Amino acid sequence: MRVVHTKQQLRKALKELRSAGGSVGLVPTMGYLHEGHISLIRRARQENDVVVVSVFVNPAQFGPNEDLNAYPRDTQGDLKLMQGEKTDLAFLPRAEELYPDGYATYVELNGRMTQVLCGVSRPGHFRGVATVVTKLFNIVSPDRAYFGQKDAQQVSVIKKMVRDLDFNITIVACPTVREADGLAMSSRNSYLTAAQRAQAPVIARALFEARDRITAGERCSASLVDLIKERITTIDNATLDYVSIIDADDMSDIETIIGPTLIAVAVKLGRTRLIDNIRIEV
Amino acid sequence: MRVVHTKQQLRKALKELRSAGGSVGLVPTMGYLHEGHISLIRRARQENDVVVVSVFVNPAQFGPNEDLNAYPRDTQGDLKLMQGEKTDLAFLPRAEELYPDGYATYVELNGRMTQVLCGVSRPGHFRGVATVVTKLFNIVSPDRAYFGQKDAQQVSVIKKMVRDLDFNITIVACPTVREADGLAMSSRNSYLTAAQRAQAPVIARALFEARDRITAGERCSASLVDLIKERITTIDNATLDYVSIIDADDMSDIETIIGPTLIAVAVKLGRTRLIDNIRIEV
Repeated sequence: MRVVHTKQQLRKALKELRSAGGSVGLVPTMGYLHEGHISLIRRARQENDVVVVSVFVNPAQFGPNEDLNAYPRDTQGDLKLMQGEKTDLAFLPRAEELYPDGYATYVELNGRMTQVLCGVSRPGHFRGVATVVTKLFNIVSPDRAYFGQKDAQQVSVIKKMVRDLDFNITIVACPTVREADGLAMSSRNSYLTAAQRAQAPVIARALFEARDRITAGERCSASLVDLIKERITTIDNATLDYVSIIDADDMSDIETIIGPTLIAVAVKLGRTRLIDNIRIEV
Repeated sequence: MRVVHTKQQLRKALKELRSAGGSVGLVPTMGYLHEGHISLIRRARQENDVVVVSVFVNPAQFGPNEDLNAYPRDTQGDLKLMQGEKTDLAFLPRAEELYPDGYATYVELNGRMTQVLCGVSRPGHFRGVATVVTKLFNIVSPDRAYFGQKDAQQVSVIKKMVRDLDFNITIVACPTVREADGLAMSSRNSYLTAAQRAQAPVIARALFEARDRITAGERCSASLVDLIKERITTIDNATLDYVSIIDADDMSDIETIIGPTLIAVAVKLGRTRLIDNIRIEV
């Protein structure tokens, strides 16, 4: 595995690795890798000749009062995990490499897709995501890029951006990987105190309960939202950001559940913001 | 020369034309080709194995009260000229091909580069330019792209966008091509009445006069701006949009002329908006 820190090094290394006709898979991450990331790298390894994993805690997608500086980092641990999954190229740029002085260009998505769910409490977040992903796509020129379905809205935004801006890249969304007790894996879980960690699985269990009710015939969004809210209020010091039941494709609100449905939740446990979701095909 | 109308046709044709290691030059145009465009195609022909010329009157770069529908079109004439310059691929998409229903993604440049000169009277113009150029870059994946220096601010914006978003594409700016009497060639010159056409060269001559004064030692921007304004007021029914003397690289205002300088002018002759500029290396 080669480890590079600049765009120039990356392009040079990629030129050497990429034989004529060889495919490239990109796994963009913010590091502090867990089983969720590993599942993305494995899938990329299966489907491509060359696998590039980037680790970059992207300042552009953090708001002024968010956890940019606190975001957990473990470069040595990340490199070991990448190596274990036969990654070809690890790209670890510094912030100044991707956003030099005078940086001015951003990719923005208008419309409800970026204005609902996390778009409400994190203004500018998806602009930052779309911008850094565009940059990584231009630097790596992958054939496929891999994202976790845990960040469902991010996946939708990136798929929409790829269609709109005509990137010739396939976006592969991989299933959320969960701890044994159901908690969706996230680098931010490391912020949780032992007490918070013990209660955090309530979020996933509320989603599973809602899914089971739908399987049993429930079709009313409002009553499912109430159910999930009720469960989440049982967590100490939990502040609900949103519970939304929406069309999984265009993210429009759903009153009666028919077709592919996304149930998405964001909750703050103390100062730690956790998100989770399930997709249901009715 | 192959003529294609969809992204899919273009990608397929380009795959066949582009041999391993062969370079691709893109000339993005809005059609109604003149000698200025021809000079871009010739330069692209000299420097690349495959030459792609696009003709697309991009709705996203026109304001609501601008000349989108009136913009001159001559597809048959354009194709003939392209063929004469040994263009390999002509890409003529319909508006719905590039902006389908529900289109939502735009590339925006913050900062003064898009807020001065044409950015003042044409809000959203450079957002439209940056967006369509990003799309064309992603569709064609050129090694080089060719633009006319007549649209100096556009060239600066595109170069900045290419640096910021990490496109691996060389932007080639080609000199403004002028009529015998100095008028910068532009598709919009076709709007001019005979009387307006006769007076239009005053704009270029004012720029040349300013250049001569600088050569003769003048270094004060304000007096050169006054000179150009004076000359332009001699044109019947002319409305000055701006006369700006700015740093040719970062487009900041210049009081005393030192270093690479851009003198840029926008004037309305009746309803026809003309722009011109000269670059001076002091």
